[in-house]
Amino acid sequence: MIPPVISFIARPNHGKTTVIEKLIPELVGRGFKIGTIKHHVHHFEMDRPGKDTWRHKQAGAHTVALSSPTGVGVISDVTSDSSVEELVAHYFSGLDLVITEGYKTGPMPKIEVFRKEVSTSPLDNRDTTWVAFVTDTTLDSDLPQFSCGDISGLASFLVDSFITGNTQQKAQLVVDGKIIPLNNFVESFLRQSVLGMVSSLKGCEKPKKLTFTIDNE
Amino acid sequence: MIPPVISFIARPNHGKTTVIEKLIPELVGRGFKIGTIKHHVHHFEMDRPGKDTWRHKQAGAHTVALSSPTGVGVISDVTSDSSVEELVAHYFSGLDLVITEGYKTGPMPKIEVFRKEVSTSPLDNRDTTWVAFVTDTTLDSDLPQFSCGDISGLASFLVDSFITGNTQQKAQLVVDGKIIPLNNFVESFLRQSVLGMVSSLKGCEKPKKLTFTIDNE
Repeated sequence: MIPPVISFIARPNHGKTTVIEKLIPELVGRGFKIGTIKHHVHHFEMDRPGKDTWRHKQAGAHTVALSSPTGVGVISDVTSDSSVEELVAHYFSGLDLVITEGYKTGPMPKIEVFRKEVSTSPLDNRDTTWVAFVTDTTLDSDLPQFSCGDISGLASFLVDSFITGNTQQKAQLVVDGKIIPLNNFVESFLRQSVLGMVSSLKGCEKPKKLTFTIDNE
Repeated sequence: MIPPVISFIARPNHGKTTVIEKLIPELVGRGFKIGTIKHHVHHFEMDRPGKDTWRHKQAGAHTVALSSPTGVGVISDVTSDSSVEELVAHYFSGLDLVITEGYKTGPMPKIEVFRKEVSTSPLDNRDTTWVAFVTDTTLDSDLPQFSCGDISGLASFLVDSFITGNTQQKAQLVVDGKIIPLNNFVESFLRQSVLGMVSSLKGCEKPKKLTFTIDNE
């Protein structure tokens, strides 16, 4: 239930968003549910000025939601940057892959977009989390390199490397914003114990989806 | 941790949003964290055309998030209307009051906004969930009535009726989108059991906030 995450990174103006924009329909066309997270370091703007939710937020609401039969939108204040883990655990459960844009550090596997017409060299801080390049040239690297036009090849690489064989556990534990890794025994023990305890409560006989939250703050 | 919910309703053009827009800063000024939910029955529009998250969504992403140090915005596809309960449980945990706009039915307590210059009578389907009116006239009703200018009186009514004395439990159980009511014994039993089981896992010694999710779909 926790989707794998792949991070697209680049120096400015190398066309990350354009690559992601072409990649999404390619993956969706293959039957996968895709999520994206854009990291933004400056002033936050998402809603449309004048809309009722925008007016509520401007008036000082901490969290505003717009709910319809086809979509839900939520804008919320936070007091510090959320971790990708936290965002994925809370908002992306059940999807097949989450693509992030703008997270240059962190443990997620990374694909760098590099165009020689824009910069002279790729990012300097390359480490073992780099897994591939999308580029208009040939880089001195052993990692897979996809041309900017080879979206199909890039999609196949992502499917093979991250989606196929990603056996998702049926239960997930998040403590203070961090996903706690559970081995199969602990996962099954916790899941069966909680299901056993709640199964006698009305409406909990055969849960398809269950969330139990504890707030000790 | 589950905030109380109050629903503002009205015939069209009676000024619901304007009342809510004035009420929010009044409540925020008294130190409360306020959330709002706007119900929308038609085409869903929230993001700004041209923004990266908008481009991701247009490209077919199921869920897109924008994350910054001050705010998080998430837009997600759904296949049916979400219940207010479900939205409150997932997105509004920890707030003091959630104000909804556009939900004319359902079990939430309701405040009707009525202006005689716009319609000849309030809504026809008034039932026991109505708790007050905001109006520019005097209605034939035993319920409290606040003038459109008396935002302070309306805020005090909401604080006294819904916020003060709302002793929030420390644990919450949501099964298939519905909040399961827990009496104090069951709440404490489940909470202590789960805390006991996870306390030997690394990072789970003293959880401030814990979420355990089971997905049997």
